[in-house]
Amino acid sequence: MRDFDETSITDAVLERLSATPDPRMRQVSQALVRHLHAFVREVEPSFEEWQAAIGFLTRTGQMCDDKRQEFILLSDTLGVSMLVDAINHRLPEGATPTTVLGPFYVENAPELPLGAEVAQAMKGERLHVSGQVKSAGGGPIAGAVVDIWHSDEDGFYDVQRPAEAEASLRARFRTDAEGRFHFWTLLPTSYPVPDDGPVGDLLRATGRHPMRPAHVHFMIAAPGHETLVTHVFVAGDPYLDSDAVFGVKQALIAEFPRAPEGHRVLAYDFALKSLG
Amino acid sequence: MRDFDETSITDAVLERLSATPDPRMRQVSQALVRHLHAFVREVEPSFEEWQAAIGFLTRTGQMCDDKRQEFILLSDTLGVSMLVDAINHRLPEGATPTTVLGPFYVENAPELPLGAEVAQAMKGERLHVSGQVKSAGGGPIAGAVVDIWHSDEDGFYDVQRPAEAEASLRARFRTDAEGRFHFWTLLPTSYPVPDDGPVGDLLRATGRHPMRPAHVHFMIAAPGHETLVTHVFVAGDPYLDSDAVFGVKQALIAEFPRAPEGHRVLAYDFALKSLG
Ligand SMILES: [Cu+2]
Ligand SMILES: [Fe+3]
Ligand SMILES: [Fe+3]
Repeated sequence: MRDFDETSITDAVLERLSATPDPRMRQVSQALVRHLHAFVREVEPSFEEWQAAIGFLTRTGQMCDDKRQEFILLSDTLGVSMLVDAINHRLPEGATPTTVLGPFYVENAPELPLGAEVAQAMKGERLHVSGQVKSAGGGPIAGAVVDIWHSDEDGFYDVQRPAEAEASLRARFRTDAEGRFHFWTLLPTSYPVPDDGPVGDLLRATGRHPMRPAHVHFMIAAPGHETLVTHVFVAGDPYLDSDAVFGVKQALIAEFPRAPEGHRVLAYDFALKSLG
Repeated sequence: MRDFDETSITDAVLERLSATPDPRMRQVSQALVRHLHAFVREVEPSFEEWQAAIGFLTRTGQMCDDKRQEFILLSDTLGVSMLVDAINHRLPEGATPTTVLGPFYVENAPELPLGAEVAQAMKGERLHVSGQVKSAGGGPIAGAVVDIWHSDEDGFYDVQRPAEAEASLRARFRTDAEGRFHFWTLLPTSYPVPDDGPVGDLLRATGRHPMRPAHVHFMIAAPGHETLVTHVFVAGDPYLDSDAVFGVKQALIAEFPRAPEGHRVLAYDFALKSLG
């Protein structure tokens, strides 16, 4: 086929892709071409705008290393990550809602005994966290693995501080016979997503701030259940309605009241979707 | 706004982008989000497929350097470059059609006198190229700048051979008083686009070959005219109907007959769109 014009080029590419051996790959690549061409036809980019897009994508890839994933950040800030999350977690009534994993999860965090102190010598408001892990519509889950991580008083995660070799504000617990866990840490604060790269440029160009409302990340895994990846957000945070990555859900916002002893308290229970 | 689901997340992102100060940026970013979300909703990627897409984009960016532009190659092989080209070159009757610039153009090629030999000591079938540059619907253009470049007998451009510091099979000419140019070079051959990166992986996964039919690139610039970026393809090439970058147009295919003296001959005239 030759002599494609503005409309026939799309059919020519779709036809070329029709020989894709794997049916899923064929479906995805053809859908990509249809939406990508429709986008181009709608906005009619100039050659210079097309070049700018190529440059943006290139810089985004080149910003990535073992500590930084700028394409995930792009997906997050365009709401794509939350859309993919929603599609993959159509949950039963009563199950705790999911939200984005975020770029700061680290595998194999140190496992600590229940009641341990996660914050060691760091500064900030002390926070006691406790909760129970249950099966949605069922009983408590003993031995569930609870990964938690969050930012410090300045809004940074441990992996963002190159000087720190040790995990901090990051740990793994195992629920007791009643499915309960508890630990001590510090109150997290709202923080900006990394905005010194192309995604930061895009946020500024679209008049957006890079802030996320304060939250504690939880990843909870138990046999026979879908692993729950979520956050608990601090009620009253000024960025709850404008999270840069669209991660807030009403049911994930909790009060962090002050205890008579002066520290803050989070008590939040989790319900996991059972598999099969 | 909180508690987005699979459908409301798109409106939430569009609303966030509505504060974009520049109207064009607002239009493009909102259109991007609509088509990107529609694509995701249509294919319902698993978390693993989303991760694979992030990895693909990251590798594509990291494949780019001063000699290689993998995102342009991706745009080319998905037909996006030809679509952008078509949108930006709605040409008058009689004007020479445009096609992709391709990744091997180099600015400021050496200017040679008319009749010069471009191939020096390289091997291959000798080729004599001549033509006239005219204004579409008008007369010849004297002093037009004609950039030409093409691959060698093995299908490589000079910039793909790291050992070669010198420009070869690449030159710039100026048309004479009648708008004519001519030079000696070698017959180009069909060649694969670079397929040792993520785009090559994608071509293989979709059952496609990486070949482009043999062609000579031309970029022709003249005051008062839109710069013409095009190729002339060699008639009879086996890849004319399956160019990996969808660049072939019927009017750009020419015979390269053999002259009585044994060399090949291309005679092709160009008509440029006049501005205003
Ligand atoms: Cu679309
Ligand atoms: Fe976070
Ligand atoms: Fe070429």
